[in-house]
Amino acid sequence: MTSLASGERRAGIDAAVSQLADLFGDRLSRSPSILDIHGRDESWHGTLPPDAVFFPESTDEVARAVRVCAEHRCPVIPWGAGTSVEGHTAPLHGGVTFDLSGLDRILEVNADDLDCRVGAGVKRKQLERALYDLGLFFPIDPGADATFGGMASTRASGTTAVRYGTFRDAVLGLTVVLADGQVIRTGTRARKSSAGYDLTRLFVGAEGTLGILTEVQLRLWGRPDKIVAAVCPFGSLAGAVETAMEVVQLAIPVARIELLDAAMVDAVNRYSDRSDPVQPTLFFELHGSPGAVAEQTEMLREITASHGGGDFAWSGEQAEREALWHARHHALYASLALRPGCKAFSTDVCVPISRLGDVLPESQADARSEGLLAPIVGHVGDGNFHMILIFDPDDRGERATVERVNERLVERALAAGGTSTGEHGVGFGKIEWVEREHGDAVDVMRRIRRALDPDQILNPGKIFRG
Amino acid sequence: MTSLASGERRAGIDAAVSQLADLFGDRLSRSPSILDIHGRDESWHGTLPPDAVFFPESTDEVARAVRVCAEHRCPVIPWGAGTSVEGHTAPLHGGVTFDLSGLDRILEVNADDLDCRVGAGVKRKQLERALYDLGLFFPIDPGADATFGGMASTRASGTTAVRYGTFRDAVLGLTVVLADGQVIRTGTRARKSSAGYDLTRLFVGAEGTLGILTEVQLRLWGRPDKIVAAVCPFGSLAGAVETAMEVVQLAIPVARIELLDAAMVDAVNRYSDRSDPVQPTLFFELHGSPGAVAEQTEMLREITASHGGGDFAWSGEQAEREALWHARHHALYASLALRPGCKAFSTDVCVPISRLGDVLPESQADARSEGLLAPIVGHVGDGNFHMILIFDPDDRGERATVERVNERLVERALAAGGTSTGEHGVGFGKIEWVEREHGDAVDVMRRIRRALDPDQILNPGKIFRG
Repeated sequence: MTSLASGERRAGIDAAVSQLADLFGDRLSRSPSILDIHGRDESWHGTLPPDAVFFPESTDEVARAVRVCAEHRCPVIPWGAGTSVEGHTAPLHGGVTFDLSGLDRILEVNADDLDCRVGAGVKRKQLERALYDLGLFFPIDPGADATFGGMASTRASGTTAVRYGTFRDAVLGLTVVLADGQVIRTGTRARKSSAGYDLTRLFVGAEGTLGILTEVQLRLWGRPDKIVAAVCPFGSLAGAVETAMEVVQLAIPVARIELLDAAMVDAVNRYSDRSDPVQPTLFFELHGSPGAVAEQTEMLREITASHGGGDFAWSGEQAEREALWHARHHALYASLALRPGCKAFSTDVCVPISRLGDVLPESQADARSEGLLAPIVGHVGDGNFHMILIFDPDDRGERATVERVNERLVERALAAGGTSTGEHGVGFGKIEWVEREHGDAVDVMRRIRRALDPDQILNPGKIFRG
Repeated sequence: MTSLASGERRAGIDAAVSQLADLFGDRLSRSPSILDIHGRDESWHGTLPPDAVFFPESTDEVARAVRVCAEHRCPVIPWGAGTSVEGHTAPLHGGVTFDLSGLDRILEVNADDLDCRVGAGVKRKQLERALYDLGLFFPIDPGADATFGGMASTRASGTTAVRYGTFRDAVLGLTVVLADGQVIRTGTRARKSSAGYDLTRLFVGAEGTLGILTEVQLRLWGRPDKIVAAVCPFGSLAGAVETAMEVVQLAIPVARIELLDAAMVDAVNRYSDRSDPVQPTLFFELHGSPGAVAEQTEMLREITASHGGGDFAWSGEQAEREALWHARHHALYASLALRPGCKAFSTDVCVPISRLGDVLPESQADARSEGLLAPIVGHVGDGNFHMILIFDPDDRGERATVERVNERLVERALAAGGTSTGEHGVGFGKIEWVEREHGDAVDVMRRIRRALDPDQILNPGKIFRG
């Protein structure tokens, strides 16, 4: 990839970088290795380093630096842990990447109110450790050890959304630096409010194009008395999908219900040294009081049996459960290991759950008929699944095939009333689909963007064109 | 009240009304009684009739009429059931009220996916009846038989938010007519999405200032196997409040937990012919499988007993439960009946739940020390409570006292990290508080407003100034 910055934009970037270096010294880096790290993410997109990387240590420093960049119309790209997968942090128009990992303090934990406030650079596992002894937890788990700023900006979710919702539901308020350097707070610590526009949820999922998140006020949950996980193989993909549909329709409050097709079970077995039967499989997790978990277990047994499910393999111990979910979270790497040297394109559609029964097998058959290796893993309780399309990056024909299969997948999902991205976000990789999905509503997004960032300095080139 | 429309604005309104009459005939009404009905709501604010009332029958008709109004810069005020309480539908700058009650069709019910789409004029009880035989229900219950367009526009919630969330959580997508008459669809039927800005939640709670909602796509829930309600009196307000706090902290999934202080129990007893002990009281409702309800019941017994709670009076039968919630929902009328000829100002703060223990009794003591009749009812599981301030509208001194007590209440709530309005919304009655609550963030709202409605024709004068 190459940056689109040129002419006047280029002169502005140079002026901003020079001024930031004067203001912040060592914390403005132009070291090639630092630039290179910040030009990558976990996507299949290429590398594109920024012109400089700034390491702020406070909201105030972010605001001061944004004012410098605004003066020179220099693009500002917020950066958390680099775990996004659609090129969200690529400096398409050059500019300065703001690495927010220094905003890494847990600022308050209000155990009685089940809420906390964290710096945007705090990571998921860091908060998990801090909350453990308080008997609390934050449920949203996209797999990667992402930052809270990053998870908020992509409206992340993951395996637990079926029970606890997505980042949208877990956030109470934000501290945001706007495009002109002004700092605002959105939301309050109240659980609900009707006091004006829901700016909190406007910034959540805006991928840094409307403001830079520097603090996040989160809801927390009490750690359940009992947690059990289980693996259940099925005779057919349809049986596993129908089970998931019935569980959701009956509102059994499972904490996780993940589908792996046989190809994915095979990949995960090899990669994580497991020996689950190579069949379409559901991974479950149940949270609750002992009585509630027992009741849910009994209901699950009945439903799975009626759809050709085999015996459950239960994991009550924490270490065993963690190994299970570790294996599940490494599905992407497990898929990549099937064909060394290749890259993976992870699709991310989400459909009304009743449509999983046709969209999922049709997509699987489509990928097969194109000769692709395409294991599937899905947060099926939400209707969200990932088909991991493996391809040789040097084979242009294969890459084109992958894009074609994804295009048909997205069209199938949109026709079913679904969305092109359930949780990964748009970055620049999915711009085309957002336009197809939302039609004229994209112009409303554009008008909001222009109203808040008229010079388009905040993460330009993401979510939509213009 | 008098309209602020004058000069050029007035000429534009007249031109728009005349053109709408030509286009829509009888469905554009200037009958004094129709205007009068649409100049009222259920608030303590005065009456202000619009210049005309338009009764559209489709999204397309709304769009056509908005285009006419836009051409003449004539204000457009959307209207549902007239149950709002902060002057949301007052035509402050004159103009045409769009009475959306004709958009009253339930457009689709997808039982397998637990979702449906309804016209903005469909009312809560109408949907409840339609869903009953399907074993489904929509839980959000603000008391009034409001329309879905109105509930979406004020981000309504009510007694069940502690379990099921607010309107924000229950909406999947919207059909919206923008200020220039363009029609957009936001969201999809997918349960989650990261595809761009969350326009759905931007329009929810925008009180018709960013667009007119004509259709709402809703989440639905399966009707629980078992529903029981219970009334439990306490020796002290503190005991009732501590019980509510502990229930929430232990994450017992109560479907409703409502607090009435002794004054409110007395008012409700008189108005609804009940004989509950005149003490601070919690009304509960539990939803779930028989086992889950039994388990929750046992936990509630232990918690209430440890905080001085008396015996539960249980209502398992539907009729009995309905009578209970009917009485609860008529708390406002019950309060008004305490002092005939008076008006009621319903405060609506929401605070972090741990702060109920001080904010609630301090506010009660404050109202008492000012000599006001001020019964309290609260959705205490959310930290939201209403102090109903009764006053003689002809007594200017008493009215000033009410405003002073409310001002101190809101300041107390904001200082506690709360919000000025948990569920009623802003209208024009709470504009001052929104500015105090959100500070500079209000300017972000203003910029979004101007970007989407530059001529400010959509419900002008609401939520914030300018």
